[in-house]
Amino acid sequence: MNKQINLNADMGESHGSFKVGCDAELMKVIRSANIACGFHAGDATVMTKTVRLALDNGASIGAHPGFNDIWGFGRRQIRMDPKDLEYMITYQIGALQAIAGAANAKVTHVKPHGALNNMAHHDLDIAMAIARGIKAADRELIFVANACSEMVTAGHALGLKVAEEAYVDRTYSDTGLMTSRSLPNAMIHDADVAVRQVISFMEEQAIITTSGKRLPSAIKSFCTHGDEPTALALAAKVRAELERQGIDVVPLPEMSF
Amino acid sequence: MNKQINLNADMGESHGSFKVGCDAELMKVIRSANIACGFHAGDATVMTKTVRLALDNGASIGAHPGFNDIWGFGRRQIRMDPKDLEYMITYQIGALQAIAGAANAKVTHVKPHGALNNMAHHDLDIAMAIARGIKAADRELIFVANACSEMVTAGHALGLKVAEEAYVDRTYSDTGLMTSRSLPNAMIHDADVAVRQVISFMEEQAIITTSGKRLPSAIKSFCTHGDEPTALALAAKVRAELERQGIDVVPLPEMSF
Amino acid sequence: MNKQINLNADMGESHGSFKVGCDAELMKVIRSANIACGFHAGDATVMTKTVRLALDNGASIGAHPGFNDIWGFGRRQIRMDPKDLEYMITYQIGALQAIAGAANAKVTHVKPHGALNNMAHHDLDIAMAIARGIKAADRELIFVANACSEMVTAGHALGLKVAEEAYVDRTYSDTGLMTSRSLPNAMIHDADVAVRQVISFMEEQAIITTSGKRLPSAIKSFCTHGDEPTALALAAKVRAELERQGIDVVPLPEMSF
Amino acid sequence: MNKQINLNADMGESHGSFKVGCDAELMKVIRSANIACGFHAGDATVMTKTVRLALDNGASIGAHPGFNDIWGFGRRQIRMDPKDLEYMITYQIGALQAIAGAANAKVTHVKPHGALNNMAHHDLDIAMAIARGIKAADRELIFVANACSEMVTAGHALGLKVAEEAYVDRTYSDTGLMTSRSLPNAMIHDADVAVRQVISFMEEQAIITTSGKRLPSAIKSFCTHGDEPTALALAAKVRAELERQGIDVVPLPEMSF
Repeated sequence: MNKQINLNADMGESHGSFKVGCDAELMKVIRSANIACGFHAGDATVMTKTVRLALDNGASIGAHPGFNDIWGFGRRQIRMDPKDLEYMITYQIGALQAIAGAANAKVTHVKPHGALNNMAHHDLDIAMAIARGIKAADRELIFVANACSEMVTAGHALGLKVAEEAYVDRTYSDTGLMTSRSLPNAMIHDADVAVRQVISFMEEQAIITTSGKRLPSAIKSFCTHGDEPTALALAAKVRAELERQGIDVVPLPEMSF
Repeated sequence: MNKQINLNADMGESHGSFKVGCDAELMKVIRSANIACGFHAGDATVMTKTVRLALDNGASIGAHPGFNDIWGFGRRQIRMDPKDLEYMITYQIGALQAIAGAANAKVTHVKPHGALNNMAHHDLDIAMAIARGIKAADRELIFVANACSEMVTAGHALGLKVAEEAYVDRTYSDTGLMTSRSLPNAMIHDADVAVRQVISFMEEQAIITTSGKRLPSAIKSFCTHGDEPTALALAAKVRAELERQGIDVVPLPEMSF
Repeated sequence: MNKQINLNADMGESHGSFKVGCDAELMKVIRSANIACGFHAGDATVMTKTVRLALDNGASIGAHPGFNDIWGFGRRQIRMDPKDLEYMITYQIGALQAIAGAANAKVTHVKPHGALNNMAHHDLDIAMAIARGIKAADRELIFVANACSEMVTAGHALGLKVAEEAYVDRTYSDTGLMTSRSLPNAMIHDADVAVRQVISFMEEQAIITTSGKRLPSAIKSFCTHGDEPTALALAAKVRAELERQGIDVVPLPEMSF
Repeated sequence: MNKQINLNADMGESHGSFKVGCDAELMKVIRSANIACGFHAGDATVMTKTVRLALDNGASIGAHPGFNDIWGFGRRQIRMDPKDLEYMITYQIGALQAIAGAANAKVTHVKPHGALNNMAHHDLDIAMAIARGIKAADRELIFVANACSEMVTAGHALGLKVAEEAYVDRTYSDTGLMTSRSLPNAMIHDADVAVRQVISFMEEQAIITTSGKRLPSAIKSFCTHGDEPTALALAAKVRAELERQGIDVVPLPEMSF
């Protein structure tokens, strides 16, 4: 079993006077930050602060592009031309690259946000548009993609480094999707259970579904939610326990691709 | 007298379904394009198309950042924190850098837009915020700044290359500002008059005002408006006549700084 | 056969400095104006001007609400909570009601815009949300709804006046939808053909499809596009010919419901 | 001394997924709610919920229009054409009128927000634009205006009911403006002091400044901030103490004009 893994979280989702999240605390727990780029959340000032926070905590910096929908926080599915989407992705990454560069930092990964991420899971056209948008910004960028999704396919098709990702605090159904939140066993609230899931996924090189099915996936990163206090506490425990068990929790660029 | 000069114009000011300008024609006349970056106008798709158009016509590529005000087209004065403004400038430049990079092109200059440009003319705090935002994105960027403005001061203070700029089709008052459009002699509609103004400014190394006053300024670029058909025709004549008189009309990076 | 019919068109789709359409000419041809309400296009100033233009030309005033998507011009399908949508509809109508009231005019109909209209055609949940939003603003409002759509069902279910609508310059397929623009016979370019279609739909109290099928619909209004010069000329000819044949082309409130 | 007074607060300043304020608690304390209208904060759904909350608590409903600047939360000064501003005000009030009407409620007052309010304090052109925008929406609306401001002048000039307003928790300088927050005595943190200020302003029919100067103003409403927990506690104490001293704290429409 690979003794390295990455923990990531979405960050920098405040916008102007609107405050979201508890980034300062969460940044201590994770090793890679997916930073909103101003389209669904975030703005130039928040991005600047979040980049500095990541640097201070040794987290690697990623872009977290989404639909241009502040009101909907990028959670509304929007049907749009894949070309427009591709350029929007490059735009958002570029904005963060410059903001990061101003702090002598570098954007090293990209993870799509919200409804865009959900749509790209199953839709190869959308996944390819995202992958093209990433590659256009920097062909060395790591594409953080839901395990078993079309984004994995798209990233590999374009020769990108792909970091397959699963969630720390969510169970999985046989479709490879997270169990719907409407079902009772969707969320993992117990740190021990979460740690066991992380380790079993790492050992098995697969997603293990609630029915016990094994969906092969060389997961390189686990995502934790930051918008709930309990998620933050859970993530902190998971990280500590992984390290206690001798697993290095590292920034994404330290993983091997 | 320097035998080289630059012609620039604002470009890429369409936004989504809203169409603005006659970029295809104007790009043939000018040598450097100031491309809107999505905040006051433009968007990722328009930026992509405008970059390609510039490449096809041998025009150098610049960012044209403005206030985050699509409705107002960046023409409303907005009072904001200089730090926020600085990061907004870097953000917009970065977005265009990535879009340009996707076409193997490079952003080589920056010119502020509209009300932001007007405010920065007299206000050193705003001018410095812009200059810091530019330098953070790339310290090699050329800052295209109104002749005799605080932006010139700010750019030099930070060690940026500064291209002082005047307008092809506007007269100047003794304050160093363009004559107000409310006055009858504000606009130059005759190509011969415009050519004479350009050449006299070049020869004199100064703005010559309507009263005959000489305001020293080593102008490196003349701007032409693209939003009126007459302006386009005027600019075309000016360029042809300058070349006929042996003056090279070159992209900004070919000027000496 | 009913000797009265309405002609409507979308209007007021400029936004800030972005200019769209030829409203002054189109307003002379139609009798009811669907005025954009600032979410996909339009703004308070454009709404004010368009209301006055409608008053000057004796056109009745309607709200043309859309998704909150200026960039996409309301043409992107956006999945959203029906409750949020319902309130957005009421909001947009209310904004126009106040603007119209300021000119002593009254909003008398509502027609959904673009992707919202398309989605509501087949989706009763969306159609009901729109109908509830309309009824909440004013239960006397006429709901202008695509013939044979779920919006007709929704409007009737809530006791609204429903004006079923067809297009002057588009043919119809057996599904009740306009023939796809990708097919050669989608558009009607000949005024005589358009007039014949209008009259046959009126006589038959039905949509007659390209295959000759009859889809019963008591059409009260025909829509004409205003974004193409040819559409404007076509609509003018259609109106003149209808009047020559003794058919009154009237504002929507003069139709019987 | 008049034994009636009004307490108001800004409300409904969440926007989409962005949550602001503690409206449920604050609504119990105040008697009139200034509800954001979607331009600087708020949205159709938040407006709907806030109207219901006001109804449940017997608070009267007012519109709180601001600049079209979600990012800046309406706190950035924006220079714009007074005509555009006038129509924007009517638009925002109309939107709330329809949302309120859907709940069988009525908008009875208007208070400008943030930077718009600050600019209109001294600038009669802006104040008049606001007053015209209010009157156009409903000439019976009460204009809640800073004491001693140009808005008072503008409201009276147009024959509107004007409710001059002071703040519960802020001291005043001799200019009639609140003492700058940069000065140590700007804020009132002690409920007894706040109550004494309210009662002295009511008794004196004037603003009493920190230097003891008396600026005549028949104040009809006191505003309390809702964005700080301490402000909420202070306001609750002030209301209780006023009522203990026999002063009726009533919704704005119950005040005499």
